[in-house]
Formats: sequence, structure tokens, C-alpha cells
Amino acid sequence: MDLKKFLNDRKKLIDETLEKIIPPENTFPPNIHKAIRYSLLGGGKRIRPILTLSAHELVGGDYKSILPFACGIELIHTYSLIHDDLPAMDNSDLRRGKPSTHKVFGEAIAILAGDALLTLAFQIMTDLNLFNDYKPITILKAVHIIAKAAGLEGMIGGQTVDIETQGDAFDLPLLEYIHTHKTGALILGAIKAGAILGDAGEEELAALTKYGETVGLTFQIIDDILDIEGTKKALGKSTGLDMVQDKATYPRLLGLEAARKRAKELTEQAERALDIFNHQKAEPLKQIARYICERIQ
Amino acid sequence: MDLKKFLNDRKKLIDETLEKIIPPENTFPPNIHKAIRYSLLGGGKRIRPILTLSAHELVGGDYKSILPFACGIELIHTYSLIHDDLPAMDNSDLRRGKPSTHKVFGEAIAILAGDALLTLAFQIMTDLNLFNDYKPITILKAVHIIAKAAGLEGMIGGQTVDIETQGDAFDLPLLEYIHTHKTGALILGAIKAGAILGDAGEEELAALTKYGETVGLTFQIIDDILDIEGTKKALGKSTGLDMVQDKATYPRLLGLEAARKRAKELTEQAERALDIFNHQKAEPLKQIARYICERIQ
Repeated sequence: MDLKKFLNDRKKLIDETLEKIIPPENTFPPNIHKAIRYSLLGGGKRIRPILTLSAHELVGGDYKSILPFACGIELIHTYSLIHDDLPAMDNSDLRRGKPSTHKVFGEAIAILAGDALLTLAFQIMTDLNLFNDYKPITILKAVHIIAKAAGLEGMIGGQTVDIETQGDAFDLPLLEYIHTHKTGALILGAIKAGAILGDAGEEELAALTKYGETVGLTFQIIDDILDIEGTKKALGKSTGLDMVQDKATYPRLLGLEAARKRAKELTEQAERALDIFNHQKAEPLKQIARYICERIQ
Repeated sequence: MDLKKFLNDRKKLIDETLEKIIPPENTFPPNIHKAIRYSLLGGGKRIRPILTLSAHELVGGDYKSILPFACGIELIHTYSLIHDDLPAMDNSDLRRGKPSTHKVFGEAIAILAGDALLTLAFQIMTDLNLFNDYKPITILKAVHIIAKAAGLEGMIGGQTVDIETQGDAFDLPLLEYIHTHKTGALILGAIKAGAILGDAGEEELAALTKYGETVGLTFQIIDDILDIEGTKKALGKSTGLDMVQDKATYPRLLGLEAARKRAKELTEQAERALDIFNHQKAEPLKQIARYICERIQ
């Protein structure tokens, strides 16, 4: 398969769906709607919703029918970027190649736009008009998984520890806590929700959980590496911030080479986890795992 | 009926449920969990969840079985207070009789604690283990109503306009937009969710919607009046801020007397809306409407 084409096609569908499910440009009140469109559209790899769609397809679902749900996860991801970039948090000026939301719209609107995206995600994910042929109990379970993944036991827990341990000494358990929570949890949640919406069996869910855990951790390790080795231009966000902010990262703990080795090992584990599935059907997720490990942006 | 006892009994049940559904005091990471408990527990009249329980009971439901759902709404209300108090927003130092969350825990933790409460609300409202005998489709519909009420078409829309029009000239339509959205929407949503969880009929839902709209608007009019007439001690929050921040309020537009008259008219409308119900069963909500109109805190 042609991964680049695959990712582009899915990204296009996701972007089209995002455009449909968020309020139009000229909605009142104007600034917050502009801020939401500015943050959400015209940037982003859409990795999380793509993983949701692919996991759904792998267990036999029709990915097109869960596009709005998958987009809800991208809304949650985008809200987390807006809030993380705030002056009181990571104080980042650049995001997805553009000035960050609070730089353009001010702090108040940035906080409110983040709140609005998080709330809108749940509004969309619970909108029965957007789903055909999905059982309400299945939707409820999937929404619950996303809420848990995005919350204190997941993303917010990780972001909190990330912020609070800046400048502290750190060890591998703390580092892995931050990584598995801050980034890994929502990636894993996205995959599990896709599988559950497709009525995945226990064995399938366990395999995709293993896949999601390893891919989620890899994603953050590579993020840390790119913060050192990547360029601002390629990444579309400020680099070198981890060192300046004295953050717990893999390369700082183990060195760049060992960090890259760990990412490769995890990626092999991720691919192996999918061996229970039909080889050809599992190919997209396997290639995405390698892409996440080898990405340069 | 003895309203004071009624409200106290319900408040006690809600406080006990809140204690059960939020993570224990010593959960890692510590500060955000402390901030959540600080903001949520030990203060607040719990009007929104009480309205949910009462609407549920009025249409024949068992209020005790939706206590966690009703508490989810209080989590959303509390998150909105934390974020509204932030320096970039209303910059309030006092809330529920104590220093506001960001004053005690810093801005980063206050933002994250707000995010966490909003997310946890949806986690709880979609937790099938917390509901017995409720149909998943009914729960989904109720969660969707709350998401919509809390979002751009509701609370966040109102808060955005409130912040953005400070210092501007304002008229009655703008003022009513702010009031019905910022405060009214979640109060109405709380009532509608309670009714829908109780499988309310169309006529019942229409009556409770009318009740919710009028009571929600009354709540904010009285809030505006108390910002002028109330004392910091009784209210547990700073007063006089509306005037300092040049905000759109009823008393500023119409004067105190006309504002109070409007609140009374709305309250009479709220009571009349409930005339379709058994007189005795509707008494709690009728008395709550009067309490909201006559409250001094």
C-alpha cells in the first residue's frame, strides 16, 4: 500500500468532516468561532482520528460512518494544544506553523476556545443524528473511553505532571508516567474507541490496546527527539523548549541514540501485536506505527 | 413543604455523591486533585443538580438513581467558575467564600483543574456502572443536552459575549443573549436532562422548558442585583465587579426596581408553566423558583 496516499486521503475526509461539524465562519459570537477555525483547520496530521478509523476498519467496521466521532477526538487534541500553549502553561508562541491561538486572539478567547472545543467534542460524539446503525450502548462506551483518556487518568494527568516537574530531577518511571498519560492515553483511547464502535472481540481489543500503548509511547519519544533534532520550519512549532523548560524527556534521560532504539523496539512490538489479524488488513496500522517512529515532523 | 429542609437534604445527598465520584484526596498528581476538591467541595448551593433531581422526580423518576449524573452538572458549573475567575477572564480573587482556585494553586493548575472537571463530568455521565435501569439512548440524549447547554450555543457563548462586550454600550437583546446563555442555558439544560432521563412526555418537557428558561433568566437578574446590593460576606464572592468591569447587567439597563419587577414576573411565569402537573408534586420546583427570585446569596 501507498501510505502517503492513504494518510492524505483520510486526512482529506477528516478535514471535510471537521468543516461540516463545527459552526460556520460567521457564527455569533465571532472571535471565538474564528479562533476555533484558526486552531482546528489548516494544520495538523490528524493522526488520532486516522487511528480511530483504521482500528474501526480492522475489526470490520465502516470507517466512513464514524467520521464525526473520530473528528471529536481531533477537537479534544486541538483544545489540549491551545491550553498547553497558554502563557501560564508551556508559553508557546508557534503551533502548526502559525502563531499560537492566544497570540492571535488573546488569552481569554484562547481559554474559551479550548473549553468550547472540548465541550463540542462531547456534543458531537453524543449526537445520535450523526450516527447510523450504531447501538447507543456502544456509543456510550466509546465516549466514556475518550473522556477517561482525556482526563485526570490520562492526558490531563500527564500534562499536570509535565508542568509540575519542570526543573526537577526525573527518573524513568516518572518519564513514562508523563509520556503514557500526556500523549499516549488519547492515542490509545482513539484506537480503543474505534475498535469498540466496531464491536471488537476481546482478543482483538487486547491486541489493539497493546498496539495503542506502544504507538502512543513511541509518538512522544519521537516528539522529544524532534524537539532537539527537528527544525521549527518542519515541525511548525517552537523547538528546544524542553531543554529551556528543563522538562523530563527520553533523550535527556537516555541520550538520543538510546531513545531512538527504544522507539524502534516499541514499534516492532506494536506491529507484532497485530499479528492476530489478517496480514493485509493490518497493514495500514502497521505502516502508521512505522511512520510514527520515522516521522521528521 | 419546608423548602429550607428540602434544599438542605438534597444538598447533603449531592455533597455525599460528589465525594464518592471524584478521585480521593491523595490521588497522584496531588495538586490538581487538591484544587478540584478545594473548588468543588465545601461550598455552593447545588441549585443545578437539585433542579435536575426535582425535574426528574416531577415526571415520575427516582431522583436517587440519577445523583451521579446530576453531580456531573455541578462539576461543569464548578469548572466554569474556576475558568471565569482566571486573571485573563474576570480576574476574581474570591469564590464561594474562599480565595479563588488560581489564587491558591496558580494559574496552570486552575486551568487544568477546570479542564479536568469538565472532562470528568462527561466521564461520569457516560459511566454505565453508575446507572441502573436507564436506557443507553436516554442517557446519550441527556448527555448531549448538557454538552450543548455548556458549549458555544450555551454557557461558553454567553461567557464569551460577556467578556467581549465589557465597556461597550448594550441594549436589551444583547443583555438577554448574555443572560440566557451564560447562566440560563446550563440551568435549563439541567432541568431538561432530568426530565428526559425520566422519560418525560412532550407536554411535560415543554412545560419544564418554559420553567427552566424563566428560572434561568431570573437567576442571573438576581445575581446582577446582588452584585450591587449584596455583601461580599453573604455571597462569598467579590461584589461590585460588574460596575468596575463595565458589564451588561439588568439593573444597569433598567434600574434596580425594574430589574426586580422583571424577576418577579418571570418567576410567576415559571410557576404557571408547572400548572399542568399535579399541584403537590410541582410544589418543590415552584418554591425553588420563588427562592431563586428572593435569594440574598
